[in-house]
Amino acid sequence: MLITSLENNNIKKYLKLKQKKYRDEEKMFLIEGEHLVREAYKSNRLYDLLVLDGYDFKIDFSYTNASLNIMKKLSDMDSTPKVIGIVKIEDKKTNLGNRIIILDGIQDPGNLGTIIRSSVAFNITDIILSDTSVDLYNDKVIRASQGMIFKINIERRNLVEVINKLKKQDYVILGTNVKEGIDVRDINVKKYAIVLGNEGQGVSFEVANLCDKNIYIKMNKEVESLNVGVATSIIIYELNGGLK
Amino acid sequence: MLITSLENNNIKKYLKLKQKKYRDEEKMFLIEGEHLVREAYKSNRLYDLLVLDGYDFKIDFSYTNASLNIMKKLSDMDSTPKVIGIVKIEDKKTNLGNRIIILDGIQDPGNLGTIIRSSVAFNITDIILSDTSVDLYNDKVIRASQGMIFKINIERRNLVEVINKLKKQDYVILGTNVKEGIDVRDINVKKYAIVLGNEGQGVSFEVANLCDKNIYIKMNKEVESLNVGVATSIIIYELNGGLK
Repeated sequence: MLITSLENNNIKKYLKLKQKKYRDEEKMFLIEGEHLVREAYKSNRLYDLLVLDGYDFKIDFSYTNASLNIMKKLSDMDSTPKVIGIVKIEDKKTNLGNRIIILDGIQDPGNLGTIIRSSVAFNITDIILSDTSVDLYNDKVIRASQGMIFKINIERRNLVEVINKLKKQDYVILGTNVKEGIDVRDINVKKYAIVLGNEGQGVSFEVANLCDKNIYIKMNKEVESLNVGVATSIIIYELNGGLK
Repeated sequence: MLITSLENNNIKKYLKLKQKKYRDEEKMFLIEGEHLVREAYKSNRLYDLLVLDGYDFKIDFSYTNASLNIMKKLSDMDSTPKVIGIVKIEDKKTNLGNRIIILDGIQDPGNLGTIIRSSVAFNITDIILSDTSVDLYNDKVIRASQGMIFKINIERRNLVEVINKLKKQDYVILGTNVKEGIDVRDINVKKYAIVLGNEGQGVSFEVANLCDKNIYIKMNKEVESLNVGVATSIIIYELNGGLK
């Protein structure tokens, strides 16, 4: 089947997914390019697939061909992709795993994508985003995650509520502090949630208050702080060491 | 003194610094915002300073006031900064330090800025960029570096030439490989250059060939690779451990 009209009902629906409001409503989001589509497919997350008319895309998933004009309209990239996937947003999990990252107000899509990628690399089980964080289904987040967004549970929640719940379930809530705390090399925990904050302001006061202890990364005193994606990655790289 | 005309000779010169060609020619670049200006000042790198007319900027450096229109024209930001600094590009050092990062074709300004920031944090002495890397004085690089660009020697050079020279001076040239090599936790070197590559293609063939050994970061097999800024940061975080 070949779709060429922007008035096609599915295309009209998918075009709306470029806005956060409709992604939330329809519980779907768009992904672009072969790498991401294959990752979504491998993770059983692909719901629908559009392939540029004339392009021979080898995948064991039934797809619809679409004209260049449609692909261009759906895309956020400078160069129009040959494949665009539609992915379903999963429901929230009832039980979280033992190794959680909590992000309080993260704003940069590249940083969030990088944290997702590192989280899968270092065996984090869940990522919890505050309501104030950047939208997870922003195309820049998805691209920076390199498709790892399909391999980890990520939820948007009220942080104070979720942290209070985790505390009752014996999670250690680890804050981060650039000046003082326990050297991340000396931390030994099995069931934890690590809280990281906004790029400029850090963690909000009420969330910081709920942390059981602070960890820090030893570094040259001339540097105030690391990039939040780097700091998160070093902490979970180091904690993952304890798993082996 | 207050400048209001875009025809002012200094302003005309500074406006040209928005293009790489003129930055290279004049050996100067622009920085925006108080944080970066203060960092440049502290590092004795500030050459000239423009402050928005009417703004009371407290700094022990003689500055010129400029109209909002001039500040707007000079700025690359959405919100016009209150201060804009002009910084001199330093000459190349004749002798490099013992802990070098070599970047072969890095493209993303955010990644380069992040690597600069982490490099100062973990006591790297020099960063060498290939001719194919993103421009160091791109405003996104400077912002992502959080002003750390003033605290470390960074040079653009022919990588094959520089690596061959370093090898004669007994540097260990460390490549990175996502599949095999020595676990970065087990590396013990004192005088080294770590080579990292382009976001998509990695290290070029001729440069990879010059590496003495490959290091890798142990991670979940579902992940092909880490973001290059994260990978670099974890490696130098881990190597810095050996210094203490």
